[in-house]
Amino acid sequence: SVTYAQAAEAAKVNRKLNVSNFMAEPITDAAVLLEDKDNMRHRMELLIMEIQAEFCRALESEEFSGQKFLVDRWQRKEGGGGITCVLQDGDVFEKAGVNISVVTGWLPPDAVQQMRARGKKLTEGAKLPFFASGVSAVIHPRNPYVPTIHFNYRYFEVETPDGQKQWWFGGGTDLTPYYLDEKDARHFHKTLKSACDEHDTSYYPKFKKWCDDYFRIKHRHECRGIGGIFFDDIDAPNPDAVFNFVASCARAVIPSYLPLVQRHKNRDYGNNERQWQLLRRGRYVEFNLIYDRGTKFGLYTPGARYESILMSLPLHARWEYMHEPKPNTRESVLQKVLQNPKDWV
Amino acid sequence: SVTYAQAAEAAKVNRKLNVSNFMAEPITDAAVLLEDKDNMRHRMELLIMEIQAEFCRALESEEFSGQKFLVDRWQRKEGGGGITCVLQDGDVFEKAGVNISVVTGWLPPDAVQQMRARGKKLTEGAKLPFFASGVSAVIHPRNPYVPTIHFNYRYFEVETPDGQKQWWFGGGTDLTPYYLDEKDARHFHKTLKSACDEHDTSYYPKFKKWCDDYFRIKHRHECRGIGGIFFDDIDAPNPDAVFNFVASCARAVIPSYLPLVQRHKNRDYGNNERQWQLLRRGRYVEFNLIYDRGTKFGLYTPGARYESILMSLPLHARWEYMHEPKPNTRESVLQKVLQNPKDWV
Repeated sequence: SVTYAQAAEAAKVNRKLNVSNFMAEPITDAAVLLEDKDNMRHRMELLIMEIQAEFCRALESEEFSGQKFLVDRWQRKEGGGGITCVLQDGDVFEKAGVNISVVTGWLPPDAVQQMRARGKKLTEGAKLPFFASGVSAVIHPRNPYVPTIHFNYRYFEVETPDGQKQWWFGGGTDLTPYYLDEKDARHFHKTLKSACDEHDTSYYPKFKKWCDDYFRIKHRHECRGIGGIFFDDIDAPNPDAVFNFVASCARAVIPSYLPLVQRHKNRDYGNNERQWQLLRRGRYVEFNLIYDRGTKFGLYTPGARYESILMSLPLHARWEYMHEPKPNTRESVLQKVLQNPKDWV
Repeated sequence: SVTYAQAAEAAKVNRKLNVSNFMAEPITDAAVLLEDKDNMRHRMELLIMEIQAEFCRALESEEFSGQKFLVDRWQRKEGGGGITCVLQDGDVFEKAGVNISVVTGWLPPDAVQQMRARGKKLTEGAKLPFFASGVSAVIHPRNPYVPTIHFNYRYFEVETPDGQKQWWFGGGTDLTPYYLDEKDARHFHKTLKSACDEHDTSYYPKFKKWCDDYFRIKHRHECRGIGGIFFDDIDAPNPDAVFNFVASCARAVIPSYLPLVQRHKNRDYGNNERQWQLLRRGRYVEFNLIYDRGTKFGLYTPGARYESILMSLPLHARWEYMHEPKPNTRESVLQKVLQNPKDWV
């Protein structure tokens, strides 16, 4: 039980943090977040809380009948927790999931092995304490002319047995249209490029290519969508600079995507367009369940909240044997671009 | 070009083999199959051709408007080929795929490593010649009261560098109902048990448990369906005995399943039942893309025919965030059985 004095104190702290803007109370105690504002863990938590809330509000404001995100705040037995926001069966968004998580625990040896393979200097076979926080979202709109967007920005710390700390950031934003609109593609990539260029003009070309390489459905020899940016293991030049870069990318999501929603959400479409959208959503499921590192890492982690991981899956998907778009259709135009990623800026 | 004499000779061989009963010409030349009838590769190929054809005909005869399987005979650049039969968008079967393949090639080191982990005595790091043949099928009916069935029976040979041959059989049949019908469950398991008991009464209990353990959606702590039988690496007591056992199992598929189709295919159902079926199909996709060894092995094999591998996916699937059946409904009854596999005979 909480005394009036304690409740009043908590309310004061919450006002200072302006938690009323967030989708739920932060995972870390608000007083702790306020007390040590320079701590990168806390800076990242405040950033992802802000990104989650602003993105959810922006999407809600596009709905026709006032549909709102459902908010699930969950705790993890092993340490930390998250806030999962889902808007399902909306008029504009068929399924939209925006998740933040702030977790601590022990890295399983498998994960250590994977990180070593990526070049991290970690002791083999050791169980290492880690901290991870991030925001991730997948938005599947109803109208086939509105693309699906995915983004994820994350911060990771691992402690080595000698007490040293390794840290890095990762993330990306990418677009999966059902019909190619070159104006959309250029706007989306340009917005991401601007966010990157503020920090380092070598970032966009490098991270654009990384994105094309990562989001590949290898067995089909095609990309999941028209790309965007993707990066991992970024720890240079220094924590401040990387954090600011990640914050710029995360804040570029709304301006990169909302204009596309607004431009297309009222367009007429028929069953033909819907069926093609469902087929492409089947491909999205294939990528996420077969290749996506985050999904795999998540599902194989004991105690993982699988509902938050699998919220990225569409409400509906379709698989047809040997489906091939007819030549010279808008569907075949998209497929060609997925097979041969293009430069958009 | 083929002379009249050659064509007449081929026709004679085909008549002797009665290939007109098959869905397509066998992958191995009919004359070769006839010439060396004791060769286990040939016996298995003839068995899977027979199983494929009988199962496809049996399913076709359940359709209301004479829908037929589409037949794709394909060759693999690396050696061998297959016959993929698909019936899509039927009145009774929403998507039914029955595939046979007969392939030769070189085992990639990863696959050798996996087999070594399962106890095979194979040289590490070597590229070994292999032969594999099998039949596999997944049937997704339209009516939610008709269960989905899957079966797969396969024969494998690997040659070791000293010229020795290792061989084994694997396979299984399992049922995924959307609503639990205890009579169905008992009939299905009893039929499989009889097929096993003819050969060894220790088989059914062992392979029933193996099936429950294998077809688990681990992150959801539930089984994919109500099981059946599953086994792998069977090479004792001798090739003849194992082949006969596998043939019995494969021939038990029709009597285990067709009565269920006939019993339920005309039952009335509504949107509620359809939506539950689609959600369960989402779970089916999760198992196949995340855990199924055959799917993974297939998709990671260079030159694999992914359309034949992914024909197991349903025409439609659905994912809802945090869906939980209401207590004391028929949906919750099924879910309880999936969480706690039962003995049915």
